[in-house]
Amino acid sequence: MKYLNYKIALLLTCLTQFSFAETGYRLWLRYDKIENQALLEKYSSQIKSINFEGNSATNLVAKKEILMAINGLLGKQVPFVSTNSASLIIGTPQSSSIIKAIINSDDLPKTADGFLIKSLAFNGEQKIMISATNDKGVLYGVFHFIRLMQANIPLVSLNISETPAIKNRILNHWDNLDGTVERGYAGSSLWEWHKLPGFTPTRYTDYARANASVGINGTVLNNVNTNALSLTVPYLLKTAALAKVFRPYGIKVYLSARFSAPIEIGGLKTADPLDPQVKQWWIDKTKEIYQYIPDFGGFLVKANSEGQPGPQNYGRNHADGANMLADALAPYGGIVMWRAFVYDDKVPDDRAKQAYSEFKTLDGKFKPNVLVQIKNGAIDFQPREPFHPLFGAMPATPVMMEFQLTQEYLGFSTHLAYLGTMFKEVLAADTYAKGEGSTVAKVISGKLDNHQLTAIAGVANIGSDLNWCGHPFAQANWYTFGRLAWNPEFSAGQLAEEWISLTFTNDKTAISGIKKMMMGSREAIVNYMTPLGLHHIMAQNHHYGPGPWVNDAGRDDWTSVYYHKADNVGIGFNRTATGSNAVAQYFPAVADQFGDVKQVPQKYLLWFHRIKWTDKLSSGSTLWDELVKHYYEGVKSVDSMQLTWVTMKGKIDEDRHQEVTQLLKIQHEEAKWWRDACLLYFQSFSKLPLPAGYEKPEHDLTYYQNLKFSFVPGIKN
Amino acid sequence: MKYLNYKIALLLTCLTQFSFAETGYRLWLRYDKIENQALLEKYSSQIKSINFEGNSATNLVAKKEILMAINGLLGKQVPFVSTNSASLIIGTPQSSSIIKAIINSDDLPKTADGFLIKSLAFNGEQKIMISATNDKGVLYGVFHFIRLMQANIPLVSLNISETPAIKNRILNHWDNLDGTVERGYAGSSLWEWHKLPGFTPTRYTDYARANASVGINGTVLNNVNTNALSLTVPYLLKTAALAKVFRPYGIKVYLSARFSAPIEIGGLKTADPLDPQVKQWWIDKTKEIYQYIPDFGGFLVKANSEGQPGPQNYGRNHADGANMLADALAPYGGIVMWRAFVYDDKVPDDRAKQAYSEFKTLDGKFKPNVLVQIKNGAIDFQPREPFHPLFGAMPATPVMMEFQLTQEYLGFSTHLAYLGTMFKEVLAADTYAKGEGSTVAKVISGKLDNHQLTAIAGVANIGSDLNWCGHPFAQANWYTFGRLAWNPEFSAGQLAEEWISLTFTNDKTAISGIKKMMMGSREAIVNYMTPLGLHHIMAQNHHYGPGPWVNDAGRDDWTSVYYHKADNVGIGFNRTATGSNAVAQYFPAVADQFGDVKQVPQKYLLWFHRIKWTDKLSSGSTLWDELVKHYYEGVKSVDSMQLTWVTMKGKIDEDRHQEVTQLLKIQHEEAKWWRDACLLYFQSFSKLPLPAGYEKPEHDLTYYQNLKFSFVPGIKN
Repeated sequence: MKYLNYKIALLLTCLTQFSFAETGYRLWLRYDKIENQALLEKYSSQIKSINFEGNSATNLVAKKEILMAINGLLGKQVPFVSTNSASLIIGTPQSSSIIKAIINSDDLPKTADGFLIKSLAFNGEQKIMISATNDKGVLYGVFHFIRLMQANIPLVSLNISETPAIKNRILNHWDNLDGTVERGYAGSSLWEWHKLPGFTPTRYTDYARANASVGINGTVLNNVNTNALSLTVPYLLKTAALAKVFRPYGIKVYLSARFSAPIEIGGLKTADPLDPQVKQWWIDKTKEIYQYIPDFGGFLVKANSEGQPGPQNYGRNHADGANMLADALAPYGGIVMWRAFVYDDKVPDDRAKQAYSEFKTLDGKFKPNVLVQIKNGAIDFQPREPFHPLFGAMPATPVMMEFQLTQEYLGFSTHLAYLGTMFKEVLAADTYAKGEGSTVAKVISGKLDNHQLTAIAGVANIGSDLNWCGHPFAQANWYTFGRLAWNPEFSAGQLAEEWISLTFTNDKTAISGIKKMMMGSREAIVNYMTPLGLHHIMAQNHHYGPGPWVNDAGRDDWTSVYYHKADNVGIGFNRTATGSNAVAQYFPAVADQFGDVKQVPQKYLLWFHRIKWTDKLSSGSTLWDELVKHYYEGVKSVDSMQLTWVTMKGKIDEDRHQEVTQLLKIQHEEAKWWRDACLLYFQSFSKLPLPAGYEKPEHDLTYYQNLKFSFVPGIKN
Repeated sequence: MKYLNYKIALLLTCLTQFSFAETGYRLWLRYDKIENQALLEKYSSQIKSINFEGNSATNLVAKKEILMAINGLLGKQVPFVSTNSASLIIGTPQSSSIIKAIINSDDLPKTADGFLIKSLAFNGEQKIMISATNDKGVLYGVFHFIRLMQANIPLVSLNISETPAIKNRILNHWDNLDGTVERGYAGSSLWEWHKLPGFTPTRYTDYARANASVGINGTVLNNVNTNALSLTVPYLLKTAALAKVFRPYGIKVYLSARFSAPIEIGGLKTADPLDPQVKQWWIDKTKEIYQYIPDFGGFLVKANSEGQPGPQNYGRNHADGANMLADALAPYGGIVMWRAFVYDDKVPDDRAKQAYSEFKTLDGKFKPNVLVQIKNGAIDFQPREPFHPLFGAMPATPVMMEFQLTQEYLGFSTHLAYLGTMFKEVLAADTYAKGEGSTVAKVISGKLDNHQLTAIAGVANIGSDLNWCGHPFAQANWYTFGRLAWNPEFSAGQLAEEWISLTFTNDKTAISGIKKMMMGSREAIVNYMTPLGLHHIMAQNHHYGPGPWVNDAGRDDWTSVYYHKADNVGIGFNRTATGSNAVAQYFPAVADQFGDVKQVPQKYLLWFHRIKWTDKLSSGSTLWDELVKHYYEGVKSVDSMQLTWVTMKGKIDEDRHQEVTQLLKIQHEEAKWWRDACLLYFQSFSKLPLPAGYEKPEHDLTYYQNLKFSFVPGIKN
């Protein structure tokens, strides 16, 4: 018999497994039968039966998960048994007499979420045990064990003891009640408020599974620019229904609280945090919330920032506001996450300084259940920012990190941007708060200043898109955020490899190629958007595409020219002592480095310094030539990504391969757009030519300046 | 070994097949391995190899589909072979020498989309052949053959020759460019305009597959309340990218055209259809469209209706407007679908009469490539309306049907409403236009008045929701619309059975139970919302919930009291000769029946007649008692659906079982809400008590009247 169509026959190999398209919906939780036959046999011989005692809600979902995973990965049913003859034994010493018999409970991690996975011999048989001091730890252990199998890691001599470095690992959804998502690029909100509380579709459970699998244990459901309606009873009932779905997976729900809610839904005349009626209103409201949601996590608050109401409206400070809410939450163990992303109505000489200026002096003034939530950098989630000077500057206050997973300034969900490298750059940054080694990671994990209350937040990039995040690679940022929240010491490369093997393939060549793409992807974007420390030069309002020419945006610190300050002489924001002196907000070792044009890392050059176009940099090139080089390198990196991706054809499923191929093409076009628009604009000041060998921009500056876009996602039109 | 947890072990049976949740994404195109072992063996022995010659784009997708389906359903790879030894032979006489040899092409259906599936002996072997005169027919034949296998129908003595009754079978998407969907209850728009034309995710192909599988061959991408931007080049490029995905599946794209586009994007001062510049603008614009989309289908137009611009703004009539566009489209074979859903700025004595009044006199005045698109009833997609009097009244004009699949007035996507019975009620209605048997189906299939141009439209209920339509059962309305568009003679029950077996299970008890739920579901809604011919008594604007008391809505014919006219004496709209005389718009045989209070079907009673509360109906009960009875029966029907659904547990997957359980609970609550609110309101006029035996309403009328809802889906907030 002659095969008619080889390509179709090849296609078929996948199709027998998936009788529908490969959509990305399953994320990294893919439990398809293991292809490596030898490994499959080995695993099958190692896992012949499972003993998993305990019937708590968390136990039940862990059981369901391990069953799905093992039966999927091994392609056969592995039975649950009640005896210690099982080859895989799961549980806590409390729930399982077998676990109690085979493990010394002192060997288990002491903290709530930790777990132990251990190979051991018992009754002359080799066994694997997954245990923890409580059910949540067991669930995390189960997910970790599944991950090992998905990544085809040999199950021998296992002795994995893990404990999360940060206690509260939280997603922030900027989801509005009307179903839109502010700065969301993956469809509409997951939360169907209209159908809640009655309807909690399967997708909510899958959301919880995905989060639990990477250790995320909290979610703020509503936008920080919030609507007080979220705190009314009908919406609390809806929130409670979501909490019920998430609870077995160890995920708490939180709400963004509108500071003026006592007026808007409480009928009071003021929201002054020192007003007894206002205090009482929040006490009563909080009590009410806990009646519906006994394990409610607490409030996230954006106050006195970008038009949101706050304590300053009443002459009070952020601590007054936060502490009022903290008092209301304290009896129930709830926390307040008070955002430091603030700037007031007056245009400052340097917006980068504002958060520090307002919060530094409040250190020590917050109640113990308040965290100050600080964005990774001092401006606003730019492709690259130096770490926020508040990290390390508030030793008496628990401070937490706010990363943005959704790519507001990094190409939306059309650009491939692996943010693991960015997260790590910030986490590993040394504040020198207590001398060398005082990394941001140590600050937020409470190690530096000995805080027990620790947290980290990621602004979610999740929406109604079939693949959750819009770009197939954007899932990696959700994954990596969770994993780094668990352990900031993981490397970005290691997590990229993990994610690729769970999401795409265990083919080593493919993993290596895709990893290369991911690891260079954020630097590529920095290069074609904002190299050498440039920042905030995107188009106005919707932030889609370049807009270095934006000079009229309602207020000066919303323009681009405020930040790059390009003129015929040079470019850059002087934040040294001769300028805004923002650099002084850092500890001396850092301030000295950043403030010295000879020492500052080139990547932060124009963030802190104003440089002449013709100044020679350490590379030996002039600033202008270096700028050009970076912009062109950015686009070239996308070329490389495209070339690498071509070689992945056949190594991963055709559906997602084609999607990424299409997206890389868009990214390439937009990278050129950024490069050409920015360089033409800056060239209008530098008056210098492109060095030889660079291709000319396709259009002139006017063309780029005149581009107009309707219906850009992420904002309300 | 003792099994610990039987329930989990049972669960497992499904889980080995699906290592993730059952989301409904696969619709009715589920190709899981056949469970009936005997049948599986029989099928496997019948389909050992496939011969499918031809390499057109449509051939390729048909090949991909049959491979996916057969390999999935049989659980093994069936090879493609190039010889006539194949047991399944597919193709046209033109593309396949084997088909040419074994079939007399005269036996094939002559029309473009028809197909023939035939068992035959060849060279002493039993074979199955799928053939057609062209590739599109082959694709439809392939989908039909797959359906047979999915429904476990024996593949013996097949001789299925099918030809669609209606040529253009079209979805109307009321999707806005900002991603919202007007009256959409299944998430946001599928079309990611921002990422188009570059990004066409897998979901678009799945959308095309689903449509092609039920014979839908056209789609209007944008809302009838449209934005002229859709006709600009950037958006035409985006539309072209979608057209490219859909083309292999035989699906044409259409656009809603804004009548005033020549002003808004053309820079003209007028959109007068008789103005030479305006005509030329449309000619040029149409030429441009066909440059990008060579098989563009044509325009859908909502003109001079609910604020949309149209020819009447310039003193012209609907034919003038439609013909101008028709002239521009004619050279390319495009069509105009001109909506008859019109009412002008003046409040009429009876809005039900307006479409007929405006269009009847235009019969014969339209160009041959214009269709008048008429909603099924004269008001607006109410739970029940008598058929629109325009059907049969424009014999010289091709008229088409507009059904609404999205449940604007039938409980959104929270109520289980199988619309097959409603579609059939309308299609089977007898207009008596040319004597008895002049059904609406005959009118729109062109049989009654010998039109070659025929079409049917369904307002799509599709969105970004994981399961496409929000309610797992809402998919049935998409499915049934397509199947009835193909053949209006199919019965609603037959199509329900088909859909259940493809979507849920082949278990006969389950099919029978679920079918019962579906077949009674629309009548249940009519009963608890608008029994006995009541209509348009929903809440204002968002249409969520009851609002019989709405008496101030901007204009009288937007209120409820305009339609029910309840007072202390009675209720109902007198549309007989003593009233608005709308009944005279029907042909005499119908008019006589509807106009006679003794003959009118009770289901249309209050649509045409004003009845006293205490009048005795043919049932022997008073109107009031009958009204009460129907409202209570509606709720009781939901009780029954819930009871039936409980018995489906274990017969279908747990995920969708739970989702529907939750939705039925919401439906039950909302059914009671409708019943109690409406009856309390009408009781305030009738002053009559609930007959004995009926449970009392939970709240008083004021409670229901004071309910307020924010963020109801389907409208912009």
